[in-house]
Amino acid sequence: MISLLPHQWLEHVGIAVSAATGVLAARGKRIDLFGVLVLALVTAFGGGTVRDVLVGDLPPVWLRTPDYLFNVVLTAVLVFFVVRLRSPPCAVLLIADACALALFTMIGTRKGVTLEFAASVAVLLGVITGVAGGILRDILTGEVPLVFQPEIHLYATAALCGAAAFVALQRVGLSESAAISGGALLVLLLSLAGIRRKNALPIFESK
Amino acid sequence: MISLLPHQWLEHVGIAVSAATGVLAARGKRIDLFGVLVLALVTAFGGGTVRDVLVGDLPPVWLRTPDYLFNVVLTAVLVFFVVRLRSPPCAVLLIADACALALFTMIGTRKGVTLEFAASVAVLLGVITGVAGGILRDILTGEVPLVFQPEIHLYATAALCGAAAFVALQRVGLSESAAISGGALLVLLLSLAGIRRKNALPIFESK
Amino acid sequence: MISLLPHQWLEHVGIAVSAATGVLAARGKRIDLFGVLVLALVTAFGGGTVRDVLVGDLPPVWLRTPDYLFNVVLTAVLVFFVVRLRSPPCAVLLIADACALALFTMIGTRKGVTLEFAASVAVLLGVITGVAGGILRDILTGEVPLVFQPEIHLYATAALCGAAAFVALQRVGLSESAAISGGALLVLLLSLAGIRRKNALPIFESK
Repeated sequence: MISLLPHQWLEHVGIAVSAATGVLAARGKRIDLFGVLVLALVTAFGGGTVRDVLVGDLPPVWLRTPDYLFNVVLTAVLVFFVVRLRSPPCAVLLIADACALALFTMIGTRKGVTLEFAASVAVLLGVITGVAGGILRDILTGEVPLVFQPEIHLYATAALCGAAAFVALQRVGLSESAAISGGALLVLLLSLAGIRRKNALPIFESK
Repeated sequence: MISLLPHQWLEHVGIAVSAATGVLAARGKRIDLFGVLVLALVTAFGGGTVRDVLVGDLPPVWLRTPDYLFNVVLTAVLVFFVVRLRSPPCAVLLIADACALALFTMIGTRKGVTLEFAASVAVLLGVITGVAGGILRDILTGEVPLVFQPEIHLYATAALCGAAAFVALQRVGLSESAAISGGALLVLLLSLAGIRRKNALPIFESK
Repeated sequence: MISLLPHQWLEHVGIAVSAATGVLAARGKRIDLFGVLVLALVTAFGGGTVRDVLVGDLPPVWLRTPDYLFNVVLTAVLVFFVVRLRSPPCAVLLIADACALALFTMIGTRKGVTLEFAASVAVLLGVITGVAGGILRDILTGEVPLVFQPEIHLYATAALCGAAAFVALQRVGLSESAAISGGALLVLLLSLAGIRRKNALPIFESK
């Protein structure tokens, strides 16, 4: 258990940051405190839950350990009332978002590797863990097509590259911690670079 | 099995009522008989299925026992053709809806307690069982943001209080039946009082 | 394993065809290559995954065998670039779609029968396997109410009849292969006939 402590600490940070972005997604939409709580829970736990349902590792960790639940509820209520006083600067939010993405992608990929799935499947599980929470949040707030907008794809592409890097680094012989650090850094750099450059993949336009 | 009979009877009533509300959600939307069946199934089984997927108790009971399936299909077809003749008075519908909510919330919380989850998690499972069917129904009918409207939150808040009351009453030493009755009554009173008063939680409006 | 080969070959064909229809659903919607991949994956694996989650047979086969993943990614990328050059004739697409429906419905029903569910449940699992992928795809592309349009219901009704025929033929004493062939043929005929005739079930219009 003691060796897991640093991971759990990081996971709690990632979950709190995700929950906060879920709350901020409710801004300007006449959503009340209950709706905000649902959005925070879905954003924070959505990715990991979809992954755990798919791999059959149920119940997910947030049902087994209520700590995660308290974390999200506390963060959501706090952010809800703080944001009413004053909005956070946009840059802080984007950096936090990218950090949560990097963290969740690594946790998901690591789980896929640990459960001995094929490398391509482990990478896919990492991407799902990283982005599914945000996709579910968008479906609930009625912004469905947002899923297919370039901003999200930057994130997904960054997650894909980072997850692949993690698997590759581990294959090459690096320790797990080193591979995770490398992969997370790549996700972070790519998503932040993408936000700055507004890079996008080719758009589908049939004739 | 015999001791479960009263519960099963109540469950069948709750499922039939839920299925009926699913059918009524299709009114005025040019949805044909098949769509109506899907809505009835999703509304009646949605909450319990989300809960069972999360706790890993699969397949859910409606796949194991076809009785539940027949119940929903029969109810849906009946309501479909009866409502074409004449619409039910609104009050009947609201009361029925609140009864199904109370029943499902108690069934979900009880399952959480039986599976020995933490109290906060059992309460959350109760709320999910109570409201997830309606949320899925709204997503399918394209009324996604409805999830975040005050009407739904009355229900969710009522479910939350009732589920918490059930857990608290059982902790205090009451029998399961008494705790369930108390919790269900609280859900019923709160949701009906809320409908009358149109109470709502504070709305999120950032500056 | 060798006796499964023809089934697996058919499954790969069905998955490739589904993936292609997922890509084509993105046409004219400004969805980029990544969004197209997500749509292809959801359409191809959605039905089987919903079924496997419900029956508790996790992880689904596409997570266990990366072949299916490669199949979808390759098909999607290929179709994405080919369709940019020239659109396929509509008839080819409709026939392909009906074939995938027939195949998936039979695979789903067969799984229900093999796992010894009640006949009505096996039929329901077949219908879910046949149509859930398309429904999820529509939710993601923001065409939610499309789920309830007559075109989809033709498909669902065809799947229902074919799945029931499969179960009935097997009960009567036919071999599994014969029952599957009969059921699949019925799905194919009904869905293609329905497309030609634009038959629809009675629409729900309350007074």
